[in-house]
Amino acid sequence: MNGTDELERLRHRLRAFVTERDWDQFHTPKNLAMALVGEAGELIEHFQWLTPEQSTELSPQTLGEVELEIADVLLFLLALCDKFGVDPLAAVYRKLTLNAQRYPVEKVRGRVMKYDKL
Amino acid sequence: MNGTDELERLRHRLRAFVTERDWDQFHTPKNLAMALVGEAGELIEHFQWLTPEQSTELSPQTLGEVELEIADVLLFLLALCDKFGVDPLAAVYRKLTLNAQRYPVEKVRGRVMKYDKL
Amino acid sequence: MNGTDELERLRHRLRAFVTERDWDQFHTPKNLAMALVGEAGELIEHFQWLTPEQSTELSPQTLGEVELEIADVLLFLLALCDKFGVDPLAAVYRKLTLNAQRYPVEKVRGRVMKYDKL
Amino acid sequence: MNGTDELERLRHRLRAFVTERDWDQFHTPKNLAMALVGEAGELIEHFQWLTPEQSTELSPQTLGEVELEIADVLLFLLALCDKFGVDPLAAVYRKLTLNAQRYPVEKVRGRVMKYDKL
Repeated sequence: MNGTDELERLRHRLRAFVTERDWDQFHTPKNLAMALVGEAGELIEHFQWLTPEQSTELSPQTLGEVELEIADVLLFLLALCDKFGVDPLAAVYRKLTLNAQRYPVEKVRGRVMKYDKL
Repeated sequence: MNGTDELERLRHRLRAFVTERDWDQFHTPKNLAMALVGEAGELIEHFQWLTPEQSTELSPQTLGEVELEIADVLLFLLALCDKFGVDPLAAVYRKLTLNAQRYPVEKVRGRVMKYDKL
Repeated sequence: MNGTDELERLRHRLRAFVTERDWDQFHTPKNLAMALVGEAGELIEHFQWLTPEQSTELSPQTLGEVELEIADVLLFLLALCDKFGVDPLAAVYRKLTLNAQRYPVEKVRGRVMKYDKL
Repeated sequence: MNGTDELERLRHRLRAFVTERDWDQFHTPKNLAMALVGEAGELIEHFQWLTPEQSTELSPQTLGEVELEIADVLLFLLALCDKFGVDPLAAVYRKLTLNAQRYPVEKVRGRVMKYDKL
């Protein structure tokens, strides 16, 4: 499976963006993984001083900034998928199936615990 | 825009997974951001000792593990989007447009530099 | 200033550990930064589902695991400092002085805000 | 053991900085772990587009910025240690001893591999 039409369109848009800037030389998977983590760090900084409750009620400005960080993480995630020929949606469905096995409802309802400690 | 049919289907599948385990109580945006960064950290650990060249030639086993970490990051990203009503694809297109303004081809071709230092 | 006797002793112990395993080839600053972030991600995973209150009352087992993750982050931080000849304590004092200028008590008491937004 | 005189002095300086700003309310271990990861993300962003070789030859300006990020990570690490009464140096020595057992020289010389895969 090669992903949806929308994701395919985005994949090509991303490739074009990188290629026309001659940036592919910097986009080794190692660097893409680093950039992804860097952006994830920028995302988390918006939440670090908030209470859990405050984190559900972001101001429009903060929400706008959070959206951009989410976009940045996703951009590098999709670039990394493209390097490896990974279908991101197929990978998510595969992980959900694995998670359903690791975390059976009757064992985990209402509790969060690493599967190897259940 | 509310995303593609595929992403909508996945969004509902994710919600069901969380709800049937009564895990929504743990899924504050604050916690989701933390979980996302934790998974991004797991992803980066697969690359930290590799050379840039080695990072392009992963063994099938390592690639399989990397796929699962990619899935984990994406799962929490989508959960976070769902909490805020953010359309992930729309956010990415918006960020690409912004990046095109910040990084004009003629200024950045072949170089990577933060836009405020161009 | 070149650090305290204790930190100097630790620095030499770390160097010996790496050298006798012929691991210096993997310890480029780029890789050390990645490893540091990977360990910070492992640290954060212990807290991601906890409430702020629960995070102050860790079980002895969890506290022991958190200590090991703290140690891992610090190990890579010290290795990175060693590569660049950075004195970690001097760097912290320099940053505290800068923070005192950026966050004057009368402006920030009781509030957390990025200094460029004060 | 309660750490060296230098670290004790720094610990008290840090506490005073936080207390006089009435920031202790924001310094739950959960939040400190998030802040630490956020700063680790800022650190990694200085290296993400560099080759391993370039990462050893930072410009004075970049090195100065890297020092400040290192300081930020260490600040939050020390604050976290303070919350739990963890002695950071003792923790590092304990982890080094564990690492020596997990990674015996004769098994790992010249190779990097997770100990559970040796």
